[in-house]
Formats: sequence, C-alpha cells, structure tokens
Amino acid sequence: MNKKIRVGIIGASGITGGALIKLLLNHKYVDIVMATSENQPETCIVDIHKFLKNLINLKTVKYNRQQVINNCDCVFLLKSHGEFQQETSILVGDACKKNPDIKFIDISADFRLKNINLYEQWYKFKHTDNELLQKAVYGLPEIYHQNIKNAFFVANPGCYPTSVILSAAPLFLNKVVDVNMGMVINAISGVSGAGRKPGLRNLAIEVEANIKPYKIGTHQHTPEIKQELEFLIQSPMKSILLIPYIAPFKYGILTTSYLTLSKKMSIEDIFKIYYDFYKGKPFIRIFNKDEYPEIQNVEGTNFCDIGIYLNEDTNTCIVMGCIDNVIKGAVGQAIQNMNIMFGLNETEGLYFPFVLP
Amino acid sequence: MNKKIRVGIIGASGITGGALIKLLLNHKYVDIVMATSENQPETCIVDIHKFLKNLINLKTVKYNRQQVINNCDCVFLLKSHGEFQQETSILVGDACKKNPDIKFIDISADFRLKNINLYEQWYKFKHTDNELLQKAVYGLPEIYHQNIKNAFFVANPGCYPTSVILSAAPLFLNKVVDVNMGMVINAISGVSGAGRKPGLRNLAIEVEANIKPYKIGTHQHTPEIKQELEFLIQSPMKSILLIPYIAPFKYGILTTSYLTLSKKMSIEDIFKIYYDFYKGKPFIRIFNKDEYPEIQNVEGTNFCDIGIYLNEDTNTCIVMGCIDNVIKGAVGQAIQNMNIMFGLNETEGLYFPFVLP
Amino acid sequence: MNKKIRVGIIGASGITGGALIKLLLNHKYVDIVMATSENQPETCIVDIHKFLKNLINLKTVKYNRQQVINNCDCVFLLKSHGEFQQETSILVGDACKKNPDIKFIDISADFRLKNINLYEQWYKFKHTDNELLQKAVYGLPEIYHQNIKNAFFVANPGCYPTSVILSAAPLFLNKVVDVNMGMVINAISGVSGAGRKPGLRNLAIEVEANIKPYKIGTHQHTPEIKQELEFLIQSPMKSILLIPYIAPFKYGILTTSYLTLSKKMSIEDIFKIYYDFYKGKPFIRIFNKDEYPEIQNVEGTNFCDIGIYLNEDTNTCIVMGCIDNVIKGAVGQAIQNMNIMFGLNETEGLYFPFVLP
Amino acid sequence: MNKKIRVGIIGASGITGGALIKLLLNHKYVDIVMATSENQPETCIVDIHKFLKNLINLKTVKYNRQQVINNCDCVFLLKSHGEFQQETSILVGDACKKNPDIKFIDISADFRLKNINLYEQWYKFKHTDNELLQKAVYGLPEIYHQNIKNAFFVANPGCYPTSVILSAAPLFLNKVVDVNMGMVINAISGVSGAGRKPGLRNLAIEVEANIKPYKIGTHQHTPEIKQELEFLIQSPMKSILLIPYIAPFKYGILTTSYLTLSKKMSIEDIFKIYYDFYKGKPFIRIFNKDEYPEIQNVEGTNFCDIGIYLNEDTNTCIVMGCIDNVIKGAVGQAIQNMNIMFGLNETEGLYFPFVLP
Repeated sequence: MNKKIRVGIIGASGITGGALIKLLLNHKYVDIVMATSENQPETCIVDIHKFLKNLINLKTVKYNRQQVINNCDCVFLLKSHGEFQQETSILVGDACKKNPDIKFIDISADFRLKNINLYEQWYKFKHTDNELLQKAVYGLPEIYHQNIKNAFFVANPGCYPTSVILSAAPLFLNKVVDVNMGMVINAISGVSGAGRKPGLRNLAIEVEANIKPYKIGTHQHTPEIKQELEFLIQSPMKSILLIPYIAPFKYGILTTSYLTLSKKMSIEDIFKIYYDFYKGKPFIRIFNKDEYPEIQNVEGTNFCDIGIYLNEDTNTCIVMGCIDNVIKGAVGQAIQNMNIMFGLNETEGLYFPFVLP
Repeated sequence: MNKKIRVGIIGASGITGGALIKLLLNHKYVDIVMATSENQPETCIVDIHKFLKNLINLKTVKYNRQQVINNCDCVFLLKSHGEFQQETSILVGDACKKNPDIKFIDISADFRLKNINLYEQWYKFKHTDNELLQKAVYGLPEIYHQNIKNAFFVANPGCYPTSVILSAAPLFLNKVVDVNMGMVINAISGVSGAGRKPGLRNLAIEVEANIKPYKIGTHQHTPEIKQELEFLIQSPMKSILLIPYIAPFKYGILTTSYLTLSKKMSIEDIFKIYYDFYKGKPFIRIFNKDEYPEIQNVEGTNFCDIGIYLNEDTNTCIVMGCIDNVIKGAVGQAIQNMNIMFGLNETEGLYFPFVLP
Repeated sequence: MNKKIRVGIIGASGITGGALIKLLLNHKYVDIVMATSENQPETCIVDIHKFLKNLINLKTVKYNRQQVINNCDCVFLLKSHGEFQQETSILVGDACKKNPDIKFIDISADFRLKNINLYEQWYKFKHTDNELLQKAVYGLPEIYHQNIKNAFFVANPGCYPTSVILSAAPLFLNKVVDVNMGMVINAISGVSGAGRKPGLRNLAIEVEANIKPYKIGTHQHTPEIKQELEFLIQSPMKSILLIPYIAPFKYGILTTSYLTLSKKMSIEDIFKIYYDFYKGKPFIRIFNKDEYPEIQNVEGTNFCDIGIYLNEDTNTCIVMGCIDNVIKGAVGQAIQNMNIMFGLNETEGLYFPFVLP
Repeated sequence: MNKKIRVGIIGASGITGGALIKLLLNHKYVDIVMATSENQPETCIVDIHKFLKNLINLKTVKYNRQQVINNCDCVFLLKSHGEFQQETSILVGDACKKNPDIKFIDISADFRLKNINLYEQWYKFKHTDNELLQKAVYGLPEIYHQNIKNAFFVANPGCYPTSVILSAAPLFLNKVVDVNMGMVINAISGVSGAGRKPGLRNLAIEVEANIKPYKIGTHQHTPEIKQELEFLIQSPMKSILLIPYIAPFKYGILTTSYLTLSKKMSIEDIFKIYYDFYKGKPFIRIFNKDEYPEIQNVEGTNFCDIGIYLNEDTNTCIVMGCIDNVIKGAVGQAIQNMNIMFGLNETEGLYFPFVLP
C-alpha cells in the first residue's frame, strides 16, 4: 500500500469516537485528517478524550460536507440514530458524484434495517432514503466479507446483534433451527453501551452493585437481529425476544440465546458446524465443551468468543456470544470493515495480527 | 412472649454466619448464646466479622453436642453441604430425646432433597439419614407457612431456588405451565454466593469487570428447583436448565425464568394469579407491567421482588425473581422461619415491620 | 413517649430523601406526614424510590410553608446548597411565631459556616441571614450533644467533615496538634456523594474501574472542617488541604488525615485520648493498633470507624475516619440529632440499639 | 534488526505472565520460545490464560537451567519475591559463561535493593548474592536509560515505586525537596497487584464496594522508594511513609505524595522542572494545572501520568503518579527495558508507537 487512508470521523466526541481514534492511532495505514463535533467544535481531541493525551494533535471542526468529500478516503459516521440520516444521504449522494472512491462506514443504526418502515416503530424517526438503505451492505465481515469488499457504504452492525448473530449464524445457515419456536436472548451489557449522554439510567449510583433489566421486548436491536437471522435462513421466524440487562462494568456484552433445534443433533455435530463455518476467521474463538466465554477474555479486543451448550432433553441449543461492545460491537468491527474495503489485511490495526490458523 | 429465644449458631465464621449475627442483634426476642467454629474457636466474633465491632461480646467455641442441646432453643446450622449431615442427624436425634422443644433450621442443602439418591449425584456425598430427610420441612414460608409453624426441623431453601420458586410458584400452582416444554433459568448472582473460601473463581481479579457463566446444567440447585416445582403441580417436569453467572457485586440474585404456558392467558390474568397468591405476604413485592426488579431494590432486605413479562407470540411467560442471596436467600429467610416456628410476627427483626397490606 | 413525631421532609426525591424515608420507616416514634418535591410533585414516593415499594403510601406535594408549620413537629431540609436558604429563613422565622415547638434539621450546607462571607467564596451564593446562621447548632452529636438537645435548628454536618472531624477531634481538643503545620486530608468517597443529578462526572462510564481526584484545594467542605477544628482548639490553623477522590462504589467515605503533633507522644497515649473522649458514644468505634477501618464495615450503618497510625520518625499522626456518607454523613446523623432534640434514645431507629458499653 | 529476540519466561502462570505474553504477541521482534511453570507444567498457555485463546501454541515446561541458557536471548523472571533468588544467581552466573549475550529482566524484587540486609527485614528471606545485587541495574528507563542500555541484568521496579519515583524525581533531582520533613505517600491500587494466589484479602467479597488500607508503614516497597529517591539526591531522607489501599478495580495505581519544598517556588517553576526533565520521554504525560490523572486514562497502557498541585500556604507540593500497575508497573516496563537493552525503539510493542514529541 503506497499511501495512507485519509480518515474522517463524523461525531468524534462520544465513547465510540474516542475508542475509534485510539485504535486508528495504532493503524499503520491511516491518517486521521478530520474529526467533527457539533457540541465541542474547535476543541483539542485530547481535551475531550483525556486518555489520548500526547497522542494526537487534532482539533475538532464543525461538520462541513464539502470538506469531508474533498479530504477523506474513508468516512466513519458516529452520530446518534436518526440524528444524521438525512445528511448522510445527501453527503453520500454528493460524494458519489465528486469523489467516487470515497467509502463510508456508518456506525449508527440508520442504514441497517432493509424494511424502511421499521424505523418509525423502533427508532421513532421517519427514514427518508430507501435507495441508500437497499444499497447499504450490512458490515458483519465473518458473514458478508465479499459484499463488504465491494461496498462503498457499510452499515456497521449493532452491538447486541453482532454477538447474537455471530454466535447463532452457523445453526441458522445449516437450517437446523426450528423457526416456529421463539428465540429468547438474554443479553448483558456494560454501561458503555449507553454512551456518554447524562441520564438517570447511566449514573454510577444506578449501575454500581446492581443488575438492571430494561426494554424487554422493545429494544431497538430486536428487528436487526430478526432481519439478519431470517436472511440467513431465507424464511420468517416466529418470534425473537431480546431481554437486555445493564451490569456494573464498562465494556463488554455477553449474550445467551436459546434455540430449539429442528432435528436431533449431537454436541459434536454442532461443534463441527461451527468450526467449519468459522474456519480461518481471525476474530472468532469457539470455546470447547463445558467452557464458556467471559467478558474479561474479550475486553479491549476485536474477538467474538462463542460458547455452546446442548440440552438434549429438550433439543435446545444454548449459544453464547461475548464481545467488547465498543470494539467488535462498534469501532473495531468498523476498522475491520475498512480494512476489507481498502484491501488490507483484515486484522490490521486490531492487535494480534498473527492469529493462529 | 416472656423470654428470649436462646439461639445457637453452628458454623459462625462464614459470610452467612456474620450476616445471621448482624440480623439477630436487631431481633428483640433473641439471645445469641453460642456460636461455634472449628477453624477459629475461642475467637472473638468481632475478630472474625469486623463489621460487628462493639456489637457483640461473644467468643466462638468448638462444637459440643451436649452444650447445644442444653443451652439452645433454636439452632441454626450453617455448615457446608455434606460436611455436617451425619452429625446433624445425631444431634437432632439426641435433642429430640433430651430437649424436645429445641428447633433446628439447617441452612445447608443437607435436608432439602427428598430423594436421598440425588445427594450422591449433585452434592458428591452419600446421605445417611432418609428418616430425617423425609421429616424435614422445606422452609419457604410464602408456600409452606403452616408446615413450618409445626416443624422442629426446617431445611432452609437455597438462594437460586428461593428466587426461582417464588417467582414461578403462582403459575405452577394454577397449573398453567406446559411441563412438557423445558424451563430455562438464567440466574445472575453476586460473589457472596460463593462464600469466603479462597479459590481462583472467587478472586476479585476474576470477578471485577466480568460476567462468568458456570456449572451450566450441572449446578446443584437444579434438583431442588425441580423437586419443589414438581411438588406444586404434582407432576413431573420434562427439563429444568439452570444457567448461573457470577457478576461483579457482593449481594443479590436476579433470576429470569422462561416458561411456556399451557393455555392462552392475558398479562392481566397472570398478574391476578400473582396478586391473589401473594396477598398478605409481607416479603413479596410484585412489580407492575413494564417494570422489573433490580438488585439494588432488595439488597440488605428480606424481600423477593417479582417481575413478569408475557410474550404473546409464543405464549411464553418470563418471570423474574430478585433477592438478596444472603438475606432472603439464606439467613433472613432462616429468621423468618424461626419467627414462624416460635409464634412470632413473621417480620420480626427483619426491618420494615410495618409493611403495607 | 406518648405520641409520634410528625416529620416533614423538604426535598424528598434525591438520594438522601430516599435514604431518610427508609430509615424513618424503621423508627418507632416517627410518622412521615409530608414529603415535598418541586420536580416530582403529586407522585407516589415509591415511584421515585422504587426500593420503598410496598413500604409507604405517601405522595409528594409541592412545598407549602403553612402546611409545613401546621403539620410537622420536625422538619428535615434536604435541598441543594443555596437553593433554599432564603426560604428556610422565612420558614423558620414564621414557624417560631406560630409553632414554637417545631424543630428543624438542615442537611444542606446553608447554615453550617459561621462566617457568612464564606458562602460566596465556597458555595457561590450570597447568604442573607446572619442571625439564623449564628443561632444554628452544628449537629455533630459526639461533640455538641448538649447544644443539640436544646436546639430548634440544627445544621447537619457535611459528609467529609463528619469523618475528618470525628477522627481528629480528640487530638485537637487535647491540644496536641501543631497547628503551624498544614493538615492534609486524603478523602475517598463513593458516588452517592454526588447525588442523583445527571452529569458527566457521575456517569458510570466515568466511575467504573477508575479513581478520580477532583476539586483539590477547592472543595466546599474545606472551610467547614477548618471552622470546626479551629473552634475545638480556639486558635487558627495554618492550612487545611482537602484532596477528594471518587471511587467505584456507591456508599462510603474513608478519610486519611495527616497531622503533625506538637509534642512527643506514644501510640498508647494517643489511644487513651481517643478512648476517653469517645467513652459511651454508641456510634464511634476505635480500631486497635495495626487495624484500620474499611468501607465495608460501616456501609448501611451510622457508625464512624476510626483508625490511628503514629509515625514516630516525624511525630506525625495519621488518623482515619470511615463512615457511610449517606447515613452518618447525612440522614443517619440527622435522625441521631432528631432523637436528641426530642429526648429519645440517641440510637433509636438507627439499628443496633444494644451497643456494648 | 535481522532476527527476532528469543524470549524465555520463567514463571508464566500468574497475572504478570499472562500480561507479558499478551504484549509480546504484539511485538514484531520477539519469539516466545519458552514459558516455564512449576505448578502447571506441560500445559497449554491458553488453558492457563484463557484470553490468549487462538493466539499462542506454546506449552509450559518445567524450568531447566540449561535449556534457558541454550535457547534464549532474553529471559524474563516472574517468580515471587525470594522464591527464585538463589537459582537466579546460579542461572545468571552460568549464563555469563556459556552465552554471554543473554540478558535478564527480573520482575521480582530480588535484585532491587542495594543494601542486602534489607531483604531480611522487608521480604523475610536471606539474600545470598551481594555481587549480582550490586551489578543489577534498576530498570526505570526514564531515569536510567543509559545504564539499562548497557546492562545484562535489569531489576525491574515495583509498581508503587514506579509511580512514586517518576512523579517525584524531577523535584528530587533538582534538590528542591526538604528531606528533613517526612514524605507521605497515599497509594491506591487495583486488585491485580495482589496476584492470583487465593487469599482472603483478594477475594471479591472483600474487595467489591470497599476500600481497604493495608500494611501502613510496613509495605515492602517502602525501602525501594527510599533507596531510589535518596540516590537521586545523594543524601538520606528522614522518613518515607507509604499508606497503601486496595480499591475495587482490576488494574491501576494512583499515588499521591506529599513533599515539603526546601524553597519557595511557583507552580510554573515546578511545571518547568517536570517538562524539562521528561522532554522526549514517550511514556510520561504531565497534566496541566488543575487537571489530575485518573486510572481510566492509563489502563492497558505503558504511560505514567503525572499531576501536580502546589499548596503555597505550606510550601507543600502534592505530586500524583498514575500507571497501569501490570503494564508500566511490571511487564510493560520490562518490555521497555528489553527494547532498550536490545537497541530497539523504546516504544516497540507497547502500542502508540507514534507519540507526539
């Protein structure tokens, strides 16, 4: 690779903004040329993200469409859901005309759902751009590597969906899930999932020494999980119930999904399906029988750890996924997507470049 | 009540020992006359449990059967599972002859399972006293109040079973659970559940900033839950799968159980069943629709908080139970049992004596 | 005591409001007759403080001066610093005319500092009532018991000052501190000290797995500590430097104060001074040589635990104080003051009524 | 650099062992050729350190002196203090004869103290090798870079000393500290400092929601700090008092040291001293006036963050140091030393290679 990717970050002041910059500072082939913030413009990045002290000299600027188009090869969109959808549409349309090589990775949920009507129900805003919605590639590299490679616009998956889909995909793709039975997902997340916006629910006094279920059956990641799993089997599912909890740690998600199998299988059959499907995938680690993922094994990494338990009495398969919600569940996966889109090694800048085959 | 209950505590040096003493120090009708410890005998209680400094003047003694029988009206047994079963049998047999008014509350699991053969499988010891096993009353006061009142030996329930059974009992008793479908229980516990015995799993370095699944399908509380739920419906259940996790807080358990209903019901029907069943029960709090229990609401109390979610698509009912594992899950419930056995107000010494009807 | 104290709580929706109600529900001689909230009026207390579910039937009302005067025997003022000072002055003035038996306990800082000018510097508001300021009794019962007994208006101490003053007072009163040397205080607090107001600093993401120094040399509790310690020695001190930190737990404060002694003393001399001074004080616990206080020993209690280390090389005495900042550092101490003002046992309603002499 | 450094790790099963391997896996110029464990020999590294799953294929072996000498260019010694001192002496002596290019970095305390007699007092073992003790270079690269470059045996500093010395060194080297006044150090550490050996003090139940002072005045890092600070000023200090606390997080140390200055200085003077001294040091970050270090800014990095507060009233300077105790306080610093010893870029393998000047 001859020259560096000029990266622009739209919305750099949140948790994901800080984490993305931190990772990109260790990426050999990236120059961060622009970081925007509407609330904190003209501010040194290190005054917003103190842990970056001495590591970056950049100031935030207010978002300016033409500057983005003129100066960036790769744009990461980190705005809140709904907040930027219309501008994203204009920006992308404009860019395609003026700088057709520019690529976009949207970490918000704005272009993940293919059914445009779902946005009003689950995200409480009216989506205006069905065309880009259909063109956007769902950025889960372990499943859509080829599509991502050719994409100019990637919708980066949500944190819960990443963990749930990766831990369940091999069963769905092999069509051994009984889709007439409901799928229940128990999903425990650290507080970084809530972002840095002050709110009663995110106060330390509400989180410390506590476990708090929230949005049972109404969490906005539910339709994303449903869409993707149904896409894998090319068939509708009866029901997906997501039960999220907030737990007292900063980073990490552990999801436990309960799936009824459509036929009798041994645990060995199931492991074989997983090993086959994820062969050569550097960020997937499948745990052996009777071993299970833990947050502490993935914190700070781009790994998705997977654990499997088969309840033979009921022919139910319990699959666990475990990720760092900010890395594999957001900015690490976004960099993984960028690497693929720009023809780099998939692991570039994500530590552990020399993963065992 | 004319005179105080003379209480003996067998095995006073663990987490439950300290917590039991702390609660009993606020109980108007109790005198702690004896506390035994084999590892730390002849030691001031306050040197073992520093938080009791200035509150109690007692020293531990080595266990002596005759002294227990001669000096106690109520004996709390707090030894580890299996460790004391044979001696408990001898002690109780001897006491019945010499001091027939003495009552026992066993916080260990040694007399909870009615099927004596289960002990070898789940607790790895051979149980020697089927007679006492059959006489022991399962000490869940919200269900077995009358039996406890007449009991001389109560087997105090385990922490997970307390939360699971109390949160599910109304559905089982009303026979609206489809027992041919498996019951899956997701159970998150604080670290106090593991006791104070040093071990890698209980180290802060393994618990902080982590969630750790363990003993999936093999946790020893599984047969206890199964026995009691089957007893409520007088019928066998196909499968119970308990999935426990350790989370980074000291006290508290939150269990989420997935039950398939045997008939269509509305959420209002279900709430009615719960309100009817738990009417007048001072330690049960049923949360309204769309509100769910949290550890922080029960910590330090004898409450069991209950939350309910109905997934109408699949006719699945999600029931949550939430307790302080050391209080309602152990010593608070033990005191509640003592109160009932000795004809006291059920809430005596357990705070909040003036609960609303 | 024939009839119950009718208690009014002004500002019931914060952390201290919930904690005060919780404690008062276990107080035999109290009726909570009124709880005000301007932000959440006409709201069930249990909808604001969910842990009080089933325990209280009261709704909040908007503050109304005449209703307070007409219906209360004891008023707890729990508003933020500065917010209510003027109204407090009017309320107290009015009450003295119409209901001279009514008593006030102000948990805010508004009437703690005797030098009225300090409010502008440290609390950023202009205080308007020097008269009440001078009449207010500083409510530290271990030192001002007699004054509190006769008071109609008590200024309840701050959390850091309670821990620092109680742990240092015996040395100051015995005039063995070299006041020409600076006193440095290292003070670690849990997050409840910051209250429930959303703010970046109180977010779980900023508190978890972190220690955060803040307001070094500028914390508003500094002049309160100085005033009280100088009052004890009746002499000015050269310098007090308070270095506060936020740590990742909910409740508790541990202060470590470095004092240079004005004469050579043995550790035994020092312990004697402490034991003599705190003889018969039910909420003070002095730790033995080589033992030190820990948050976990005081959480949920009204105790102040004290530890002492003497550095003979430098004639420096290190004194540690440890309290639950919400209990002994706020509402527990307020109830202790109420008990004294109304002629009750000092420990009433504060657990552990039978403390050893 | 033509070929990779062949690294051997003696004592690979503890917290530092896992962390060292994790970092070295991201080091371009290192091959881990050997990892020993006496307790868990012939065990896959990934079965000891699960977070390394898929990252390393090595098994532990029992320690064998000749294999170390024959196969390694650089040996990291990670045994507990005292446990391996004699063998280290033999190993080093033997290696010098057979493989004079081999270099050693000892992470234990065994070769840090120049006064051999201190080992018996502070570490409770009798040290047998004064010769190597005197030859060992104290591996604090920001101060002893040149010595480390030429060293064959480096004694890697302790975690508290690293933070304390780095944050205080500029004042000492500039001789503006009044050494006749005692230096008091308040030092808060996460639980990883205690290692992975089960013990009551390290149990989650003792650490969660708690702050625990320990070993006040008796912590074994005290003489190390004293030796190094005295070395900087070439003069004895009257007294150093280290007050350590354990706090509820995994990684990180924050030290606050109280120093009396020997002459009047402005805060600007002091900052100038620091900026001058640490100019060009990639792992030192000096915080501006009124900003202070926090654990969360250094976790997972090799940085030492420094904060400064001047109390002009008393001419006291408060200096804060903040490090990740396992990285800059142990294995990260060890790698930094290795880099220097082998002529590599000091930041190699330690993330953030492109630190701003």
